[in-house]
Amino acid sequence: MKVKVGINGYGTIGKRVGYAVSKQADMELVGVAKTKPDFEAYRAKELGIPVYAASPDFVPRFEKVGFEIVGTLEDLLEKVDVIVDATPGGMGEKNKALYEKAGVKAIFQGGEKASVAEVSFVAQANYEKALGKDYVRVVSCNTTGLTRTLNAIKDYIDYVYAVMIRRAADPNDIKRGPVNAIKPSVEVPSHHGPDVQTVIPINIETMAFIVPTTLMHVHSVMVELKKPLTREDVIKIFENTTRVLLFEKERGFDSTAQLIEFARDLHREWNNLYEIGVWKESISVKGNRLFYIQAVHQESDVVPENIDAIRAMFELADKWESIKKTNKSLGILK
Amino acid sequence: MKVKVGINGYGTIGKRVGYAVSKQADMELVGVAKTKPDFEAYRAKELGIPVYAASPDFVPRFEKVGFEIVGTLEDLLEKVDVIVDATPGGMGEKNKALYEKAGVKAIFQGGEKASVAEVSFVAQANYEKALGKDYVRVVSCNTTGLTRTLNAIKDYIDYVYAVMIRRAADPNDIKRGPVNAIKPSVEVPSHHGPDVQTVIPINIETMAFIVPTTLMHVHSVMVELKKPLTREDVIKIFENTTRVLLFEKERGFDSTAQLIEFARDLHREWNNLYEIGVWKESISVKGNRLFYIQAVHQESDVVPENIDAIRAMFELADKWESIKKTNKSLGILK
Amino acid sequence: MKVKVGINGYGTIGKRVGYAVSKQADMELVGVAKTKPDFEAYRAKELGIPVYAASPDFVPRFEKVGFEIVGTLEDLLEKVDVIVDATPGGMGEKNKALYEKAGVKAIFQGGEKASVAEVSFVAQANYEKALGKDYVRVVSCNTTGLTRTLNAIKDYIDYVYAVMIRRAADPNDIKRGPVNAIKPSVEVPSHHGPDVQTVIPINIETMAFIVPTTLMHVHSVMVELKKPLTREDVIKIFENTTRVLLFEKERGFDSTAQLIEFARDLHREWNNLYEIGVWKESISVKGNRLFYIQAVHQESDVVPENIDAIRAMFELADKWESIKKTNKSLGILK
Amino acid sequence: MKVKVGINGYGTIGKRVGYAVSKQADMELVGVAKTKPDFEAYRAKELGIPVYAASPDFVPRFEKVGFEIVGTLEDLLEKVDVIVDATPGGMGEKNKALYEKAGVKAIFQGGEKASVAEVSFVAQANYEKALGKDYVRVVSCNTTGLTRTLNAIKDYIDYVYAVMIRRAADPNDIKRGPVNAIKPSVEVPSHHGPDVQTVIPINIETMAFIVPTTLMHVHSVMVELKKPLTREDVIKIFENTTRVLLFEKERGFDSTAQLIEFARDLHREWNNLYEIGVWKESISVKGNRLFYIQAVHQESDVVPENIDAIRAMFELADKWESIKKTNKSLGILK
Repeated sequence: MKVKVGINGYGTIGKRVGYAVSKQADMELVGVAKTKPDFEAYRAKELGIPVYAASPDFVPRFEKVGFEIVGTLEDLLEKVDVIVDATPGGMGEKNKALYEKAGVKAIFQGGEKASVAEVSFVAQANYEKALGKDYVRVVSCNTTGLTRTLNAIKDYIDYVYAVMIRRAADPNDIKRGPVNAIKPSVEVPSHHGPDVQTVIPINIETMAFIVPTTLMHVHSVMVELKKPLTREDVIKIFENTTRVLLFEKERGFDSTAQLIEFARDLHREWNNLYEIGVWKESISVKGNRLFYIQAVHQESDVVPENIDAIRAMFELADKWESIKKTNKSLGILK
Repeated sequence: MKVKVGINGYGTIGKRVGYAVSKQADMELVGVAKTKPDFEAYRAKELGIPVYAASPDFVPRFEKVGFEIVGTLEDLLEKVDVIVDATPGGMGEKNKALYEKAGVKAIFQGGEKASVAEVSFVAQANYEKALGKDYVRVVSCNTTGLTRTLNAIKDYIDYVYAVMIRRAADPNDIKRGPVNAIKPSVEVPSHHGPDVQTVIPINIETMAFIVPTTLMHVHSVMVELKKPLTREDVIKIFENTTRVLLFEKERGFDSTAQLIEFARDLHREWNNLYEIGVWKESISVKGNRLFYIQAVHQESDVVPENIDAIRAMFELADKWESIKKTNKSLGILK
Repeated sequence: MKVKVGINGYGTIGKRVGYAVSKQADMELVGVAKTKPDFEAYRAKELGIPVYAASPDFVPRFEKVGFEIVGTLEDLLEKVDVIVDATPGGMGEKNKALYEKAGVKAIFQGGEKASVAEVSFVAQANYEKALGKDYVRVVSCNTTGLTRTLNAIKDYIDYVYAVMIRRAADPNDIKRGPVNAIKPSVEVPSHHGPDVQTVIPINIETMAFIVPTTLMHVHSVMVELKKPLTREDVIKIFENTTRVLLFEKERGFDSTAQLIEFARDLHREWNNLYEIGVWKESISVKGNRLFYIQAVHQESDVVPENIDAIRAMFELADKWESIKKTNKSLGILK
Repeated sequence: MKVKVGINGYGTIGKRVGYAVSKQADMELVGVAKTKPDFEAYRAKELGIPVYAASPDFVPRFEKVGFEIVGTLEDLLEKVDVIVDATPGGMGEKNKALYEKAGVKAIFQGGEKASVAEVSFVAQANYEKALGKDYVRVVSCNTTGLTRTLNAIKDYIDYVYAVMIRRAADPNDIKRGPVNAIKPSVEVPSHHGPDVQTVIPINIETMAFIVPTTLMHVHSVMVELKKPLTREDVIKIFENTTRVLLFEKERGFDSTAQLIEFARDLHREWNNLYEIGVWKESISVKGNRLFYIQAVHQESDVVPENIDAIRAMFELADKWESIKKTNKSLGILK
């Protein structure tokens, strides 16, 4: 028997999670809810995915252009075991009452506050905490990225200071700027540090900046170590960490552009780079301080987490069994 | 018996043509020549494609990092029937002597002068002219884009004036700017008009501008008609033209970003959009003037042309048989 | 006696018009109305300019941070002869009732519909039409740019087709995108052509595109001539046209960046380039078609027009006397 | 008697230093050397500045367009007491032999190695060390920026970790990218830390990234304190530090764009922001760690340093007398 999955919000994250669900033997994609009949809605229909209006208010938009919908979100909720809420940040909290009323489990994304769910989730760090839960929050792309590498070395961490250089807008979003400026978050430290702490209990502070690019976020990470680690140790650890890949500048990985090109060369769907990319040459230990630079593909790194969260919530598999299944189904290299 | 194909220059165009060759039943990819062992070279090796050094001068680069090569370009030339030259603009002309010496046919790209080859080629416009030829030039991405739509209405054209808004750099190229300026080509009219005339004999003038984006070129086309055409006629013609797609702003195709997103949603390899995208709402006729706006994916629109050129040069198929085979193999929609 | 001028909206255009007013011997800047106490408000205060709240609703914002205001817009209107409305597009129309009630003349900007005023204005084209008028609309930066050069050759024009490549956001605006895409206006022809016709009666059609840059708009202009003109004629005409400057690529004017650098080298306030910049090498005549490329500094080209409009409305000077005074006061080169 | 100053390289830095020299009562700008007759050369001539060819090799370029030059660099060196070398990075070292041969003192910029000069210089940190010296290196824009704020708190510093988010190209440079990517320097820590140590002996490590913007560099600074400092202490110290300004997000300083707008509102020549801008709200102390964010106007922050270096080399004034004179002449606020 397969877990019946619905998706509310079929944009950047929603459509990728939908695709990933369709690749799992133990899940079934029952339908997706959208606010408007744009090309992503037409694509869903082409793929045979039932499309629902995200609320009765939006039904006229679909009717106007003759786009047939199956029903509304409430209809979809009747047919599913779990809903993946991939609506814009802050809306998930408002939607939660609907999910509770329908008696379905729900996964929220990182744009929601931690309090929306019972657990904030990164599979390789705390899969077990989500076992059997009804409400799970997959943390943001940046928090997921920090957690993946820091969790791997967490026994060595005294303190982490990470500077996050964020993309201004996703490739498909042409409304947001800036076009030609650097925008700091003057909230110092930024909220990303505490967000990591909702998953793993480490001492971390962060600062954040927005810059005019669409491809990836980049993190400059500095770790003060409480016990010795060499550069070679860290390389070995990251080589053995799932959903983390090392990239060598020597092979032409000069910027985020080449990391995305790597995903394109693999023919990954939507050039998804589910893995966190760490520049191998950047890994450096000076005294008790470890430095490294990593890049996060904001459109896709949380996708496997959503799949693993579903398995945990329905106790379909244990941690490593789930991670392996998800990885294999999505072509994640390790 | 399959045509044996080699590729000299395995970058943006070369790797795509290599992929396309590997999808053809009547062709075989024998090897590719590269100047350096970057991640694209490693990817070729992973895919089982024999890698050659583009010249003996480059062999040490490969040896230095322990990247095993099969030989050099001259070795590759001995094994192939045709070489696709996908080297940077202007180098093809210099390479031609090598190809002549080896007695292999050669395809050049649009960065070369028309005089490098016997025919300048866009399959749907002049496939027949390349039949049996030894040297064919596939014209540039922009010229291909203009030719595809203009050829479809060529009997109606008195004069064409096209303004080309060009991307500054490919997504994988981080060296070129501008970062924040518009750069006109003050050569007026630009060289693109005469280049179209190497394929179809129409009266055309063009102007060109470079802007800070990486995704696609955009063309603003104005046609003075010599006999009447309505908006509906043009829509019908373009709907029936191969390698041209209509996109509706009403469905959310607001910019080049959404056209690329469409290709990503299709899970096209490298988000290739082999087809020229015309905004349906932009097609407009006022008096004897037709206007439309189209976008060109500079990384991929010439890829099917390279495949068709090979078929013509070896007389493997007639025009529409070749176009159909190529389209089907690459998932080109029509 | 000086004309008493107030300014409603002290942003990109408002602050420049305020500065320009302060440079005129026959005008007095009485005060400016703002919606919030940002750094531009503090700068006004430093310069000794009385600051008013744009409406009673905004007073608390100023009080909250202890920024002393003189009163509200209605108070300002009591003290002025004319108000320059430099509020965001569409708001001028709503504000007009206030101006009428106060019995003050008003100048609107190009973001308003032509119907908001008695005349749409570009000084060198139709100064006389604004003489004695109560409501004048200074047309948009793009329309002003097209009108300046086309008016100079209007007797030769049979038809104009202009493609406008527009900056995405002003340098000071970090909210708008796109970051990495080209966005066409699929309204074809665009509204800019008819807007030029509100000033000069020529046959013109336009198309418009938005690209990720902040510096200037660029226009690719094609004119079908009804009587002969040579390249040299056009150069001579533009050399003798006020508020139009020729720039030579040969001297390093490769893009909009160098035109702005020219204004910076002149130590123009805010690097204002009040003049329309035409690339000299781009001026070209082929048969009966004239081509040229021009750039428009969207932040400043309409500023002298606002000053001339005031003079016309109060009949302070005739056309060329006003233009000369304005030019001299702002360092406009010719 | 005035010090006779020549400038070799009249680009971004050279033209600003030339302007600054012309504003000093104790200096005289004797001439500038250029490689080509571009618009910056014509502007120099308009301003009455004698223009020399940077080498005999470049004379034909000037002759070709009829641009009269006074002579070559060697002629200029005969007339000056000191040459400011503002040539591209690495060329200063090659030029040094010429300066030695001519027996003139020389100032180099931060693109040169420290070994080119007797002292690496930031006026407020080590003016005295340059007294009477023949060769002084004004450090780079980034090093100057870090030194200004860190020098002010140097007694409290145990360790500094700074992440530098660098602009890709200057506003006037359209050749360099990236257009849409983040490029890390994988040399970790980067060379900027040791460069600060050529001026002040503090324990500092840095990392550097290049992003697609032209306006300013931004630094995310974290300081581990060896004795307590409060947020208020730091604000007071920076308020009393010359060439450092605090900017409040509350007043609309949301990004580098608004800092540049501030300089434009001041009608600073070329929108120079000679001062390092620190976001007031970003100053934060958590335990023994101080955080702050600053922005550096790469085109101008080193300009006052060049002037002060000249005064020190000729012992024209003591440190604070020189800084005050320079500040006053350039409108530096404090």
